[in-house]
Amino acid sequence: MPFLHNAWYVAAWADELSSSTLFTRTILGEQVLLYRDPEGMPVALSNICPHRFAPLHKGRLDKGIVECPYHGLAFNSNGQCARNPHGNGHIPPNMKLRQYPVREQFGIVWIWPGDAALADETALLTHDFLDPAHNMVTMRYLRMKANYQLTIDNALDLSHLQYLHAGSIGSDSIVRSEPAFRQEGNTVWSTRQIHSEKLPNDICKLLGLPNETHANRRLEVRCDPPGLITLRVEVNGIEGAPTLSYTTRSVHLRTPETESTTHYFYAFSYPMEMGKKGADFLKNLTDMLTYPFEKEDLPMLEMQQQIIGNKDFMSMQPTLLPIDGAAIRARRVMDQLIADERDTPHLKQA
Amino acid sequence: MPFLHNAWYVAAWADELSSSTLFTRTILGEQVLLYRDPEGMPVALSNICPHRFAPLHKGRLDKGIVECPYHGLAFNSNGQCARNPHGNGHIPPNMKLRQYPVREQFGIVWIWPGDAALADETALLTHDFLDPAHNMVTMRYLRMKANYQLTIDNALDLSHLQYLHAGSIGSDSIVRSEPAFRQEGNTVWSTRQIHSEKLPNDICKLLGLPNETHANRRLEVRCDPPGLITLRVEVNGIEGAPTLSYTTRSVHLRTPETESTTHYFYAFSYPMEMGKKGADFLKNLTDMLTYPFEKEDLPMLEMQQQIIGNKDFMSMQPTLLPIDGAAIRARRVMDQLIADERDTPHLKQA
Amino acid sequence: MPFLHNAWYVAAWADELSSSTLFTRTILGEQVLLYRDPEGMPVALSNICPHRFAPLHKGRLDKGIVECPYHGLAFNSNGQCARNPHGNGHIPPNMKLRQYPVREQFGIVWIWPGDAALADETALLTHDFLDPAHNMVTMRYLRMKANYQLTIDNALDLSHLQYLHAGSIGSDSIVRSEPAFRQEGNTVWSTRQIHSEKLPNDICKLLGLPNETHANRRLEVRCDPPGLITLRVEVNGIEGAPTLSYTTRSVHLRTPETESTTHYFYAFSYPMEMGKKGADFLKNLTDMLTYPFEKEDLPMLEMQQQIIGNKDFMSMQPTLLPIDGAAIRARRVMDQLIADERDTPHLKQA
Repeated sequence: MPFLHNAWYVAAWADELSSSTLFTRTILGEQVLLYRDPEGMPVALSNICPHRFAPLHKGRLDKGIVECPYHGLAFNSNGQCARNPHGNGHIPPNMKLRQYPVREQFGIVWIWPGDAALADETALLTHDFLDPAHNMVTMRYLRMKANYQLTIDNALDLSHLQYLHAGSIGSDSIVRSEPAFRQEGNTVWSTRQIHSEKLPNDICKLLGLPNETHANRRLEVRCDPPGLITLRVEVNGIEGAPTLSYTTRSVHLRTPETESTTHYFYAFSYPMEMGKKGADFLKNLTDMLTYPFEKEDLPMLEMQQQIIGNKDFMSMQPTLLPIDGAAIRARRVMDQLIADERDTPHLKQA
Repeated sequence: MPFLHNAWYVAAWADELSSSTLFTRTILGEQVLLYRDPEGMPVALSNICPHRFAPLHKGRLDKGIVECPYHGLAFNSNGQCARNPHGNGHIPPNMKLRQYPVREQFGIVWIWPGDAALADETALLTHDFLDPAHNMVTMRYLRMKANYQLTIDNALDLSHLQYLHAGSIGSDSIVRSEPAFRQEGNTVWSTRQIHSEKLPNDICKLLGLPNETHANRRLEVRCDPPGLITLRVEVNGIEGAPTLSYTTRSVHLRTPETESTTHYFYAFSYPMEMGKKGADFLKNLTDMLTYPFEKEDLPMLEMQQQIIGNKDFMSMQPTLLPIDGAAIRARRVMDQLIADERDTPHLKQA
Repeated sequence: MPFLHNAWYVAAWADELSSSTLFTRTILGEQVLLYRDPEGMPVALSNICPHRFAPLHKGRLDKGIVECPYHGLAFNSNGQCARNPHGNGHIPPNMKLRQYPVREQFGIVWIWPGDAALADETALLTHDFLDPAHNMVTMRYLRMKANYQLTIDNALDLSHLQYLHAGSIGSDSIVRSEPAFRQEGNTVWSTRQIHSEKLPNDICKLLGLPNETHANRRLEVRCDPPGLITLRVEVNGIEGAPTLSYTTRSVHLRTPETESTTHYFYAFSYPMEMGKKGADFLKNLTDMLTYPFEKEDLPMLEMQQQIIGNKDFMSMQPTLLPIDGAAIRARRVMDQLIADERDTPHLKQA
């Protein structure tokens, strides 16, 4: 399957970029060089020197200028060659790096791997609950040796909590709650309203509740192309325990590294007005979720990928169930966007 | 080279299967799930859940029912989906696992990877000297990173004992004995009658004989498709030492894992009536043979495979010798069976 | 890109071959067996037994005869099968190993991987400064996971010293010196005359000079097909320091192992008449250069290779500069020789 190129993908968390260090990340199969210019603006360029294909992230960064480690050719943050130290210093017209449109918002560095002329500011998805001016935020990263769509299927299907996460964040009440899906434009929602659930012990401990506390839990997943998940979890007291009320919002953003590997960026936040209690809660929640994400989801996704190999998931004719409804809708959205991109001649890719 | 599918292969030793644990083994390139039902009968199913291709051996086994670790779909020992815990519980017709015919006899679990309708009970090779009711048996397993036919060539060619096993079970008398081959139907025999051999020290020690004892040794290898070797070794006293007489029977059963890797199951036995002396002998023999099998045959086969790579052995035009006669006959038997299978339309494979 | 077969390549340093031990090295993608016959003459044969493709270097060597570890077939140093220990001992006509022409001169074992009938003694490049009768020599070997032509490009381009070797043998004066290239027949020269250079500290220390000593440095690289570099470095005092004068000669010889890996043989020498001072100098120089070769050149070449993958370097359209002039000339020489070899029907390859 080709990738969708004309879309905003997460390139990095904001604190991964610096004006003193270079780093590289492969995005949609392309080696991208990431850093900040002297004004602190994020920069994304091809990491491959056009002279002899040396990797630029091994070079030096000085005042926004990247110097190739092999022969000292220097490139500015537009990708233009700013200095050829050799001979008469002539710079051939092709001595330039591809520059990718980048945007930074609320701790996320976004990249547009497609046609720069089409980079659409208004298409950038805004997650105001990650705004650090008003929120405490934890940001994490996992690399998954699995195709990005498998990882999105996982997030849009809440039923797996009962089985794959039986030992952590799941419970026996998940599958008896009816799943609901809806699609609006290219956005797909998947929700579960769980009534009178015996909360998992990990969650009771996190919330400071006695073990086996019963509550109502509502899970709402929103998925936007090309692989952007927003999750809202509400825990509310059942009748007779009305004071119990928690809402947690998080993002789970996927960027394809290659056809079979995925960058997974996830973040949780609470409003600053929650003070120390909120800060402690945020830390405990993030720590607690490390186990289900790294020890339950990650191995399952990687084992699926090993079985699928380089075949296409749908061509293997999975026997799908109603619980796959949201995932299938999200896959169809992507299929359509990729087909549109392929069929529109002026949407050239790099 | 395609595999022969309509044949009985060894899937496992009987004690590898349990009614409380799942395990998987790749056979002819297919991931097979192996366990026992509550009655103790062996079960072989596809290890891949048809829903989303999760590996079932990571799931739970309860009373013969396998539960997928990802979404809890449950399958019975016929491969039928026995429970869909989601929604209205409807089970789509395709929600089933391939079931492989299996048979258990004398400690061996056999599998038929081809058309189940053709699984031929009478084709099962019986090794009554492995019957645990009357015999003491040691069973071992080695995985070899070499094509299964290379490993059969090795077993059918007894001349290599003099060179590859010079430091263990070989002697200078091997090649001066005339090889004899014969074929009956699809069965190929390879024998060596070695006269007045100075027995290898390892064998003298095993038999409790002084070093450099001379004896007659007869080696008889029987090979049946698809890769089933039975070996009979007799050591008899030369003239003047008539009391020396030992017979050892063993099996060396190969199952292709992939085109370039092989499961190697081997077993030795002595009749129970031999008592403690036989038990000690069996243990010492098995231990002694670990060295030539693991440190001499295995590396040679794996180096051959590395040199051959993904080419076909015969297409590389080996310069064959009369000593290869049995191996070539066994390869021709397999070639013919594979050609027959390919040309018979009703012999469909899974 | 195909290789040039009809040429002399370095197979090994002379002290790698022995009349008591076998070893193998892959050259132009072929496994070659290397040893010495009882007269001490170097021998290069195919390492693959024609019988069953066993690796001969695991066998035994006795008086110039190689015995296959698997079945004891013996081959003499012409590659002829000298003994079939089996049956009536008949030796099939095809039971022979390819024999490669080899020559030994001044510590280098040369191999001709092409048509033996064309092996041209006079084409052997002579490096008399490696003659051990008159010189002290250090010989070193590095395996590089990079195409051999990338490693030659590196040697022919002296400008990279200023950047890649900034921390070792480079200085800020390299790129302001004009590069000069010239081609004579199939030989390409690349030179730099650096005036009044502040010598790198490593070199000052080596020469026993105060740090920051200024001197003139002249670098001259000669490249002959198929990948043979001779380097001459002169350091001379600037005006007012006429007594400073050093000349160092070295070879940097490349042999393709595969399309993407290279054997790199390098050697330094000083005349024996320099005595202990020369011996110490030779040792210190060789030790000092380990760092730039192993920690600077090697990783850069391997990262380039990773980026290039299995694509052809020129087909990736590098944006070349005047400093690449010598490398491009050397590549064109090879392209022409390879094209000539391909188009000349009688130049058959093995």
